[in-house]
Amino acid sequence: MQSENRRAIVLLSGGLDSATCLAIARDEGFSTIFSLAFDYGQRHRFELKAAAELAAINSVKEHRVITIDLRQFGGSALTGDEAVPKDRDEGEMSAGVPITYVPARNTIFLSYSLAWAEVLGVVDVFIGVNAVDYSGYPDCRPEFVEAFERVANLGTKFAGRFRVHTPLIRLSKAEIIQRGTELGVNYALTHSCYDPDASGAACGHCDSCVLRRRGFETAGVPDPTRYV
Amino acid sequence: MQSENRRAIVLLSGGLDSATCLAIARDEGFSTIFSLAFDYGQRHRFELKAAAELAAINSVKEHRVITIDLRQFGGSALTGDEAVPKDRDEGEMSAGVPITYVPARNTIFLSYSLAWAEVLGVVDVFIGVNAVDYSGYPDCRPEFVEAFERVANLGTKFAGRFRVHTPLIRLSKAEIIQRGTELGVNYALTHSCYDPDASGAACGHCDSCVLRRRGFETAGVPDPTRYV
Repeated sequence: MQSENRRAIVLLSGGLDSATCLAIARDEGFSTIFSLAFDYGQRHRFELKAAAELAAINSVKEHRVITIDLRQFGGSALTGDEAVPKDRDEGEMSAGVPITYVPARNTIFLSYSLAWAEVLGVVDVFIGVNAVDYSGYPDCRPEFVEAFERVANLGTKFAGRFRVHTPLIRLSKAEIIQRGTELGVNYALTHSCYDPDASGAACGHCDSCVLRRRGFETAGVPDPTRYV
Repeated sequence: MQSENRRAIVLLSGGLDSATCLAIARDEGFSTIFSLAFDYGQRHRFELKAAAELAAINSVKEHRVITIDLRQFGGSALTGDEAVPKDRDEGEMSAGVPITYVPARNTIFLSYSLAWAEVLGVVDVFIGVNAVDYSGYPDCRPEFVEAFERVANLGTKFAGRFRVHTPLIRLSKAEIIQRGTELGVNYALTHSCYDPDASGAACGHCDSCVLRRRGFETAGVPDPTRYV
């Protein structure tokens, strides 16, 4: 599987999952990485700074930030004015689609990655979606990703060659952290909190913080997150 | 099928096809229309003016223009600096994917319509793609649209209810013009040329102009297009 110059696009939000996904892509032999982040009006825009830092220390070939205005559609606590839920337990988190879901977000993100992929002639895209620890997002499910792959192959010149890689999709948060730690990911550079303070410190109580913190505990890895 | 207040989103580029698509949506009983146009760096941005006018005279409930930067990816004569091909015959037009193809354009457009649809709770989206007269675009094929419908239903809360309507997909350009004329579409307000002059006059020689002009001739409908 290893070859001299395999190229891939990695969707790099700046969070724990996408940072691990990037490390796995490298480990799988993709030596030339193009990374893609989105400034979509998210209230946790701090993650974009994390994405840029991760791109730099990983020597990606090119890091792009696409500005898209999902705020104008609203419909999510991440892009609107609704409060981000705090201190929810597992039962609450897994009950239906959470308010932090952003309508069609991963469909839009993957569509942009597809456009860039087609222009670059890159047929491999990595996305750090995860269906285990937090299954409330419909656009993190394997069947969604498979369906998108089909759209991509029918709607472009790729004609069957395009592939969406989801190396984290069946892993728990603890397993992701263990895998990333083996691969040398510096999680201190990653940002997961949905509701950070102005300095970027994590709230420690949103769903994303709760899952992240618990993941480090379960993995037995020291949590480098800077909390409020 | 007719009900008091059926709502639909119509992708309205300002061209002949999307104007007809809007008229068909109305005729099918969708009384409340939301229209969506994209400013994607196309060289024929004049079509956006046409889209706004068409939205106004059709009393759409809301017309949105989404700005997306496809120029930064390049890869198309419509968004880059490559010349728009002129005076091509049918053989040339149908030979492979043309340079006016914009990578992943319809995937991106449909993704945005999906985001808006989910926020509005609208399950019907109309897109005026056409696979007959100009089959060189992979993202105008029925199988592409069906695949996108699957993505939409898996990646959102719609869970099977979302539908992409493509009333023009099996029609020739002449049949589209005949249908639109029956429905009272004012084609003088529509804009199709890929390479208009500064006043918005059509070049008459790009693939889009050639197909449009021939469509009016075959339909036996006077061509209201303002040519250079």
